[in-house]
Amino acid sequence: MDTHTIDTADTPEPRPEEETPWLTAREQRMWRAHLEVAKLLEYQLSRELQPHNLAINDYEILVVLSEAPDHRMRMTDLATATLQSKSRLSHQITRMENAGLVLRQECPGDRRGLYAHLTEQGWETMQRVAPDHVRSVRAHFIDRFTPEQLDAIYEALAPVAEHLRGLRGRS
Amino acid sequence: MDTHTIDTADTPEPRPEEETPWLTAREQRMWRAHLEVAKLLEYQLSRELQPHNLAINDYEILVVLSEAPDHRMRMTDLATATLQSKSRLSHQITRMENAGLVLRQECPGDRRGLYAHLTEQGWETMQRVAPDHVRSVRAHFIDRFTPEQLDAIYEALAPVAEHLRGLRGRS
Repeated sequence: MDTHTIDTADTPEPRPEEETPWLTAREQRMWRAHLEVAKLLEYQLSRELQPHNLAINDYEILVVLSEAPDHRMRMTDLATATLQSKSRLSHQITRMENAGLVLRQECPGDRRGLYAHLTEQGWETMQRVAPDHVRSVRAHFIDRFTPEQLDAIYEALAPVAEHLRGLRGRS
Repeated sequence: MDTHTIDTADTPEPRPEEETPWLTAREQRMWRAHLEVAKLLEYQLSRELQPHNLAINDYEILVVLSEAPDHRMRMTDLATATLQSKSRLSHQITRMENAGLVLRQECPGDRRGLYAHLTEQGWETMQRVAPDHVRSVRAHFIDRFTPEQLDAIYEALAPVAEHLRGLRGRS
């Protein structure tokens, strides 16, 4: 759940090579709250997608493809957009292909490989599921903040997201 | 990545049965930032644990057990503490047992089942890895916020975490 809570009377003497201080109580509680919300929210949203026979990652793919021109995207770009490894995405697309939600297609005259294409059924599924999912996101997350909190959190997180995207891009 | 971005000129006419409005642009950007930070941070912290041959969930188990009395915990309680299903935890503990980090033990006179017990090697591993992990958490997350932002985010997230824990507890 958290990093380490040695921040109390039994803190060991810091060894000279340890230059990074442990989290303070104030930092620790925020770190724990972030981890807990991230984990529990994913769990709850997944649960509420189950009646639709969709995993949360499937829903994400449906959304990304539904917003792409012609409802299709190069597999490489889809991996980048969903922050997944290509091999993991490939397994997921196979499952979704079997469920009739997407199709893998070679693009004629394009050597850069395969596209994932939303099927009619995939598009209909997304439209059917989206209202329920938005309801879940509002009920368990978005509607629980004031407008000021929404903005404050966005402003705090946006540069962190950019930093992390940069690291990811280099890897 | 996100819920749905129909929030523009091409928004379809809401059908009467849809009572939940789509996310506004302001809500949408916060929701995206949260999802992105949660996903990318977990990815980055996992990457930086790899040289220690630890998955991020393994590290979490080491931390929780190292804070428990006698460095041990009932499997059921460990599942609750780490927000995992018992079956998933059981697989993970098997892997960690094979790596020499924990031991499964029956408790004499206690019918309520198995305990997970941190081994000496598990304890040493935790102590060796913790400074690196704290460095990662600071570099990619905690040190990127002002003290005011840390407090504001904590205050916003804490009730959400409580709400989600409540739902989880009932499931």
